[in-house]
Amino acid sequence: MSDIEQLLEELRRFNQERDWDQFHNGKDLAIGLSIEASELLELFLWKDPEAVNQDKIREELADVLNYAFQIADKYGLDIKEIMREKIRRNAEKYPVEKARGSAKKYNEL
Amino acid sequence: MSDIEQLLEELRRFNQERDWDQFHNGKDLAIGLSIEASELLELFLWKDPEAVNQDKIREELADVLNYAFQIADKYGLDIKEIMREKIRRNAEKYPVEKARGSAKKYNEL
Amino acid sequence: MSDIEQLLEELRRFNQERDWDQFHNGKDLAIGLSIEASELLELFLWKDPEAVNQDKIREELADVLNYAFQIADKYGLDIKEIMREKIRRNAEKYPVEKARGSAKKYNEL
Amino acid sequence: MSDIEQLLEELRRFNQERDWDQFHNGKDLAIGLSIEASELLELFLWKDPEAVNQDKIREELADVLNYAFQIADKYGLDIKEIMREKIRRNAEKYPVEKARGSAKKYNEL
Repeated sequence: MSDIEQLLEELRRFNQERDWDQFHNGKDLAIGLSIEASELLELFLWKDPEAVNQDKIREELADVLNYAFQIADKYGLDIKEIMREKIRRNAEKYPVEKARGSAKKYNEL
Repeated sequence: MSDIEQLLEELRRFNQERDWDQFHNGKDLAIGLSIEASELLELFLWKDPEAVNQDKIREELADVLNYAFQIADKYGLDIKEIMREKIRRNAEKYPVEKARGSAKKYNEL
Repeated sequence: MSDIEQLLEELRRFNQERDWDQFHNGKDLAIGLSIEASELLELFLWKDPEAVNQDKIREELADVLNYAFQIADKYGLDIKEIMREKIRRNAEKYPVEKARGSAKKYNEL
Repeated sequence: MSDIEQLLEELRRFNQERDWDQFHNGKDLAIGLSIEASELLELFLWKDPEAVNQDKIREELADVLNYAFQIADKYGLDIKEIMREKIRRNAEKYPVEKARGSAKKYNEL
């Protein structure tokens, strides 16, 4: 079993044991993900990136990942496949010769 | 190489080819992640969860995952380890006997 | 002095007394606003809108408004003017005859 | 009529003409607000705060304010009152002598 599949399996078991699938509609999962991403961001508020507590990044990033994996599972999406597909698409939107060393958005390149 | 490590490797190559590491400080990566989580959430605005276009979920969730993986990589965090650690902690905060069938937050259980 | 101007005046005094203008760059203010909007949203997670504690909405919405007013002030924007201008633009994007009773986005109408 | 009341009146009329009150439950309004705050934040991604296009800040901030005002109206909250109450509370959490010149959170002061 791959790493990703194993993590999904553990998340499924966690939710089944608590009978939480009934609450896990896509909309609330997406709200939860957005809130956790915001809590991660809060660590950086008023700070230089270097000044941030790395243990807290670990904590909040894990929350983000756990929600993101659950949403993938909810919609039957293959995490590896969708991430690689997106990397391919971004490679088209940001061709090396144009995007190299630039932080511009693709529609401004 | 595990599938997570393989995805990290592809993301690293993508960024190196474009010389984008210079822009990828933790603070802007966290902003980027938060924005993508919000774009995923936007798909659900004014809608029942069932009415949402699944191709778009696929797209936006991939963006979220790609940012989250890059943040993990930036801070040298082991994705599998931090996700499992968080599942263990959540299992302590939400013991099965108390949390079963309840959507309450742990401090209200 | 209008209500809005009076509120801006109180926010300015609050920040000046604490010498906080040095921290209040637009980027961190926008991060702060986004975090507060997310805390407001968290009140609704896993819940029907009716089940939400109204005192907490009051608290979190006030945080959102205080940040939004400070950003307007930072960039010398006239709150009343920009809000009315946006209502006018939205009236063009969503003409009554097309938008009436529909929750579709303007580009899908 | 105060300027805040006048803006609320214009927002109410806009929604009534389109029969949109049926969609405007608190949860979706809070999602909408969070999305607009995120669009404002996106303007600052990868950028120094000074490099940001001020016309776009004007646009996105107006969206944030319009949602925030509608949420206040939905819950019958007096915008001026809740903002001033929050300023008073923040003054207690961040007393001048302790908070002056510090960007720390109140629980770390």
